[in-house]
Amino acid sequence: MGLLIKKVELGTEITDVLIEGNRISRIAAELECDGAEVINGSGKAIVPGFVNMHTHASMTLMRSYADDLELHDWLTNHIWPLESKLNEEDIYHGARLACLEMIKSGTTCFNDMYWHFNGVARAVEEMGLRAMLSSVFIDFNDPDRAAMERKQAEQLFEQSKTYSDRIGFALGPHAIYTVSESSLKWAKAFADEHGLLFHIHISETEKEVNDCVELHGLRPIQWLEKIGLLGPNVIAAHGIHVTDEEIELLAKHQVKVVHNPVSNMKLASGAFPYQRMAQAGIELSLGTDGASSNNNLCMLEEMKIAALQAKLIHADPTVLPAQQVFEMATCNGARALGLDAGIIEEGMLADCVLVDLNNPRLVPGYNLIDDLVYSADSSCIDTVICDGKVLMQNGIVEGEAEIIAEARAYKNRFQ
Amino acid sequence: MGLLIKKVELGTEITDVLIEGNRISRIAAELECDGAEVINGSGKAIVPGFVNMHTHASMTLMRSYADDLELHDWLTNHIWPLESKLNEEDIYHGARLACLEMIKSGTTCFNDMYWHFNGVARAVEEMGLRAMLSSVFIDFNDPDRAAMERKQAEQLFEQSKTYSDRIGFALGPHAIYTVSESSLKWAKAFADEHGLLFHIHISETEKEVNDCVELHGLRPIQWLEKIGLLGPNVIAAHGIHVTDEEIELLAKHQVKVVHNPVSNMKLASGAFPYQRMAQAGIELSLGTDGASSNNNLCMLEEMKIAALQAKLIHADPTVLPAQQVFEMATCNGARALGLDAGIIEEGMLADCVLVDLNNPRLVPGYNLIDDLVYSADSSCIDTVICDGKVLMQNGIVEGEAEIIAEARAYKNRFQ
Repeated sequence: MGLLIKKVELGTEITDVLIEGNRISRIAAELECDGAEVINGSGKAIVPGFVNMHTHASMTLMRSYADDLELHDWLTNHIWPLESKLNEEDIYHGARLACLEMIKSGTTCFNDMYWHFNGVARAVEEMGLRAMLSSVFIDFNDPDRAAMERKQAEQLFEQSKTYSDRIGFALGPHAIYTVSESSLKWAKAFADEHGLLFHIHISETEKEVNDCVELHGLRPIQWLEKIGLLGPNVIAAHGIHVTDEEIELLAKHQVKVVHNPVSNMKLASGAFPYQRMAQAGIELSLGTDGASSNNNLCMLEEMKIAALQAKLIHADPTVLPAQQVFEMATCNGARALGLDAGIIEEGMLADCVLVDLNNPRLVPGYNLIDDLVYSADSSCIDTVICDGKVLMQNGIVEGEAEIIAEARAYKNRFQ
Repeated sequence: MGLLIKKVELGTEITDVLIEGNRISRIAAELECDGAEVINGSGKAIVPGFVNMHTHASMTLMRSYADDLELHDWLTNHIWPLESKLNEEDIYHGARLACLEMIKSGTTCFNDMYWHFNGVARAVEEMGLRAMLSSVFIDFNDPDRAAMERKQAEQLFEQSKTYSDRIGFALGPHAIYTVSESSLKWAKAFADEHGLLFHIHISETEKEVNDCVELHGLRPIQWLEKIGLLGPNVIAAHGIHVTDEEIELLAKHQVKVVHNPVSNMKLASGAFPYQRMAQAGIELSLGTDGASSNNNLCMLEEMKIAALQAKLIHADPTVLPAQQVFEMATCNGARALGLDAGIIEEGMLADCVLVDLNNPRLVPGYNLIDDLVYSADSSCIDTVICDGKVLMQNGIVEGEAEIIAEARAYKNRFQ
């Protein structure tokens, strides 16, 4: 068995890449492997699959449902009412559509937070991607709800073990304004005890910061440190409204920060302090957020917009160059999730993408990373391999018509 | 003859669209036309082709050649030395690649400024697009060069008449810091006399503004007004560093302003004052600029980034909603160029695009315009028709492999 990719471009070399099981086993010229499926890699480059570090995958069902609105109006009058109508089966269909879109745009792994864990997990299992899944944990300071949420988290952690190794479980406390202090502490202790990640929205809006200062006399990250919530297993999405002192705290506790430039711009949440974060040595990765505030899950686009936003905000075209943003979208995310992925090397997980070098957007082809960050779109993605299995070849994903037909039916249901 | 598109989605209706000659002749259900080529439009939507209002098309040859650099370094050490090596044949190959990329991403018309007019015109003629082409006019205050440039402009205007009606000629004085006052006046008089457009870079960088103030005691747009250069045939690219008073002058003289968000962000030129421009009633359109400062020519991406930039800069998610940015990318540009295009209506030029509604990025499909602005990429573009001719069908452009092979050869020549 195995998968042998012949004569593919890797960096500046043409080489063969052998995948055995779910790992890259050999990278060398002229490899042979009896019984391996052979993929002709000529005219293609191999790069790591993207790691989308902050998603609410099933919100594809809300794509272009409500746009160009003020955040509160958008959430309370449009998104929450629709979300409340969705059951686990709906979430499954939304997550399948999300997985399909992610595969088509070269993503092999995502870090998700959403309701109906098993709906999402079932979709990921079937679609062949890798994902770290957390159920949204919200208690609104209600002790009964807190007890129920804790019980559910324990149950889901047990259930998550019944899925394949591609699926991991993380704690997903939504934010400091939706989860009680005691539940935040409980979730962090549970994560620490079981070696799990703790995925939370932090300092996305000014309102969140102001409310925290009013309530606790501290800014969000100061308060989280005070109650012992920061640590290397914390994945903090957004992190826009942060002072230098807060950035130092994030760095000190090795918190992983996920930048979501498109969502932050579309909702006018604010601009990410990229330079201050990078200079403090914080591990930065990239996420699309949900499709209703983006409105896609495309990491190619997210890389470009991250680089553009940083250059504009810092008034410096040399800030966040292509290679750095590419690493944010690949190996940095993989490292934050504790995965041997995000880089094409022997021994790493076989989560990779073949790029069509004859797509006009990648021509003449002076620099592939620059081309991927600044010019490519999903039409450049030819083949996607995750965990050693081919999920897409020649741009085609098996069963895509049925997935799309199921998801399109929501148009008539909700419009 | 003719082209009959059956059962295509137009707005919220399913209809047939008949194209005769180079115009849309009928839009109604159940049309018949003997001898017309029939296109099955089911599962597709018809929208106007994009009008890319500021390009240097052949700079596709410099795509990803030099990125993440300070503007002066980028231009003087990388772009200008390479540009100086390009002859008309190179420009032809670069323009063909640009046309191919534009067709693939749904653009049917572009407003260009570059060297070797005939190289670009030949490519546009062959590729079937519509374009307004200007040769770059630069004299650096040198009277000999000014005389030569004026003679060349007169010659190119005559030569432009030998091409098809799809190709128009415009004056292309580069900028106020590269063209003498007398040549600017000459070019404007020539444009006015012959009913031509006058395409110029204005207020792209702070340096340009500061230099103008130092030299003339006036800001660029004030100075241009003083010397009689503003008018409804002026297409002003960029317009970033402008005061309210300058915006009033642009509005008063009905100058058409082209916003180039990606280029402005990538080069850290600055943020476009969208709200002030829009409130002053200025006709705004959208451009990608050249591929070396973008690095693609994709109007789908440009629309999204225009909307995102405006929301971020104005700290308001309701600013520049999808429908407005879509109009900037279609009918506003067409109107600025004096074309009956940019809208799907009987009697209009048949410059249109069929969008594949079964692309996962357009699903569920609550709002096509929102989907096109915020979620689509070129993989959603199925068919492109310009001037009544099919340029792409099912994503395939005739002869594309040869165009790409020719353009890829520049990688080895310049790397």
